[in-house]
Amino acid sequence: MRKYRGHAKLVLKPGSTKEVSKILKYCNDNMLAVVPQGGNSGLVGGSVPVFDEIVINMSRMNNIRFFDEVSGTLVADAGCILEVTDHYLAERGYIFPLDLGAKGSCHIGGNVATNAGGLRLLRYGSLHGSVLGIEAVLPDGTIVDDLSKLRKNNTGYDLKQLFIGAEGTIGIITGISILCPQRSKAVNVAYFGLESFEKVQAAFREAKSQLSEILSAFELMDSGSQDFVAAVTKNKRPLEGEHPFYCLIETSGSNSEHDNEKLEKFLESVMEKDIVSDGVVAQDETQVRSLWAWREGVSECSGHWGGVYKYDVSIPLQDMYKLVEETRARMDAAGLMGSGSSHPVVGVIGYGHMGDANIHLNVAVRRYDKVVEKELEPFVYEWIKERNGSISAEHGLGLAKKNYIGYSRSEAMIGLMKQIKRLYDPVSPPSFSLGFEG
Amino acid sequence: MRKYRGHAKLVLKPGSTKEVSKILKYCNDNMLAVVPQGGNSGLVGGSVPVFDEIVINMSRMNNIRFFDEVSGTLVADAGCILEVTDHYLAERGYIFPLDLGAKGSCHIGGNVATNAGGLRLLRYGSLHGSVLGIEAVLPDGTIVDDLSKLRKNNTGYDLKQLFIGAEGTIGIITGISILCPQRSKAVNVAYFGLESFEKVQAAFREAKSQLSEILSAFELMDSGSQDFVAAVTKNKRPLEGEHPFYCLIETSGSNSEHDNEKLEKFLESVMEKDIVSDGVVAQDETQVRSLWAWREGVSECSGHWGGVYKYDVSIPLQDMYKLVEETRARMDAAGLMGSGSSHPVVGVIGYGHMGDANIHLNVAVRRYDKVVEKELEPFVYEWIKERNGSISAEHGLGLAKKNYIGYSRSEAMIGLMKQIKRLYDPVSPPSFSLGFEG
Repeated sequence: MRKYRGHAKLVLKPGSTKEVSKILKYCNDNMLAVVPQGGNSGLVGGSVPVFDEIVINMSRMNNIRFFDEVSGTLVADAGCILEVTDHYLAERGYIFPLDLGAKGSCHIGGNVATNAGGLRLLRYGSLHGSVLGIEAVLPDGTIVDDLSKLRKNNTGYDLKQLFIGAEGTIGIITGISILCPQRSKAVNVAYFGLESFEKVQAAFREAKSQLSEILSAFELMDSGSQDFVAAVTKNKRPLEGEHPFYCLIETSGSNSEHDNEKLEKFLESVMEKDIVSDGVVAQDETQVRSLWAWREGVSECSGHWGGVYKYDVSIPLQDMYKLVEETRARMDAAGLMGSGSSHPVVGVIGYGHMGDANIHLNVAVRRYDKVVEKELEPFVYEWIKERNGSISAEHGLGLAKKNYIGYSRSEAMIGLMKQIKRLYDPVSPPSFSLGFEG
Repeated sequence: MRKYRGHAKLVLKPGSTKEVSKILKYCNDNMLAVVPQGGNSGLVGGSVPVFDEIVINMSRMNNIRFFDEVSGTLVADAGCILEVTDHYLAERGYIFPLDLGAKGSCHIGGNVATNAGGLRLLRYGSLHGSVLGIEAVLPDGTIVDDLSKLRKNNTGYDLKQLFIGAEGTIGIITGISILCPQRSKAVNVAYFGLESFEKVQAAFREAKSQLSEILSAFELMDSGSQDFVAAVTKNKRPLEGEHPFYCLIETSGSNSEHDNEKLEKFLESVMEKDIVSDGVVAQDETQVRSLWAWREGVSECSGHWGGVYKYDVSIPLQDMYKLVEETRARMDAAGLMGSGSSHPVVGVIGYGHMGDANIHLNVAVRRYDKVVEKELEPFVYEWIKERNGSISAEHGLGLAKKNYIGYSRSEAMIGLMKQIKRLYDPVSPPSFSLGFEG
């Protein structure tokens, strides 16, 4: 988003947990600010040295420490790249229980620190459930060694949970232990067009009921998002004709024949019930990838005209798409959106993870403009607060949203979070509040 | 286990979160000890007033507050009985993501407070993943209102996680929000006999690979456990002939035909490979229940002769059954085990959740006897510590294991837990250490 430019005089690349401990102890004793950095793929400025922080980059800690082929338990350094880790697991018939667009550069330690959700949360669940153990270093250098390989251990408080989603503000994660599911032998993908968001909801209900245990993704893309991908990639669209909404369904299972039968029955029934207007099922691996490209390409393509304001939010399902419509109407009413270069806004689109009630609102612009920003904020945040949604479903707070936490959390909850921050990081100046940013 | 007898002069049954808050504030201000109590089905003495505590019983807070049929989000009072809640969900096509033997009396708040695992953790995962929000009251009366209905909310620390498994020591859970999966239309159960624990492990690997997404339980029972059930219930055994080990497999899916086909293929292949010696598949709902009774009945039946010492532990899979064999050998060597009434020990059995590397070691006795206890402890705990296992996979610490946490947690981790206890409950006398017991 070109929003944050880093300035750092010193980048440290520790090679071991002990080195991380020594660095943090030294910095803590000498009141030197640090910012932990994984693959630097975050979207909220959390890993950027925006002041004068020392960068602690984890990329040298990238070893797989242990893998058990019976239980699927993996223990690995925080700096392992997600895609590399997943390839390691693929060779052994397993899959990392998380997948996201930035997999080629993001670190698994960063994924855990930011509680990444990604494309298959619907199937594999939250990291709070799949992470078995964590090794982390507290600000004063204390090493928290909680790298359990056990699926069940009810002996005292589950402190590792605090580090999942804390974005490195109470400690730096140096290693994780995680339960990996078996990789599915059969993967099927369908892409279809729908008339309204009501029909998208109906299709989702049907998919949950009919595809149930094999449903691994249910993704939503509006027509604007697909127009962007078509305009930028010039690829042939998967369906003839235009539809206001598109969905991508992925199934993963152990028996290709069974899954095909279920998916075809599902498509038949939703076409018959007039829920879906048109649809296509991938016939081979190449088609699976090309259909996914219409979902995975949205983020990059919407930045094509110069820039994009991105909001990654969670809203109770029935209201989810209204945010996009109302934001679009607002841009229109303010005269900011149009095809000529005098209009800063190219378009307002919505897409995301239907299965998690998680939508990405993207406002594609020709240039970043304070006038656009003023129309967007606090409007978007207030809209979400009114509906008890979350202003950050996946991306975290970082620097971008550190002042907006009050839109998604009560004063009382923020007070309790500050207690925890003070407990683990008493030296940090109070101006850092919760310390998000890094 | 007849181990704890409660003494209480006062039992309070609050009807609202506000009342819980007033009670805790009053007790905190006046230094009165309390013990929260759910369905009183715990096995470690955690809900028993063993000193002179005031019992805070949650049974009057038993309302379903909210349910969304599209997302499966349930919000309910802590005092709702698990089975009642599951019936409510069943009528709507959903299932509570947890099932256990005590479902007829245990409370969902108690389930969350003790991080219960139960029979279907293999399929539905840990409560750390499925619980979306918690309402709790801290010792000083502060109400923590974190009853989010969102599947994704990455805005700050996920404090609700601390209450999951804390056994009420840092606050009393008054309400929960939880994501419920769709109820499977098809449930199949198979029961089979095997020659050795090596073959049980091989069968588990095959089941994970072939049954994958429809596998909802893989339970282990040794011959001794099945002998107990046979002796007490006088029921006809599911299989002809004797086998050293038995397993129960359950599949749950959306298509009965597909699931049957997968299960039959699986049984054929494990019989062909000589992994399984003999097996039977339930033909109807009645047979499903009667096969499950051979697993679910073990706990009750092993208490038939007078009493039973129970250990619920987690050990890396390959070593899991050795604990039972070595404990049995130890009882034998000490001359404590035999058929005459002069021997206190009737038998040593093992059974449990293979899918979670979680075994229940039961030592069935004619009478509780210090000599038996001395042979068992600290032997069992030391054995587990050596293998980096957990001395309490599911049941928690309570009073029974509060002094044994060191066998499963490092000094450093216990120190960090004490910090958290002090943060939320500074008034509690230090002799209470972590406060487990209640």
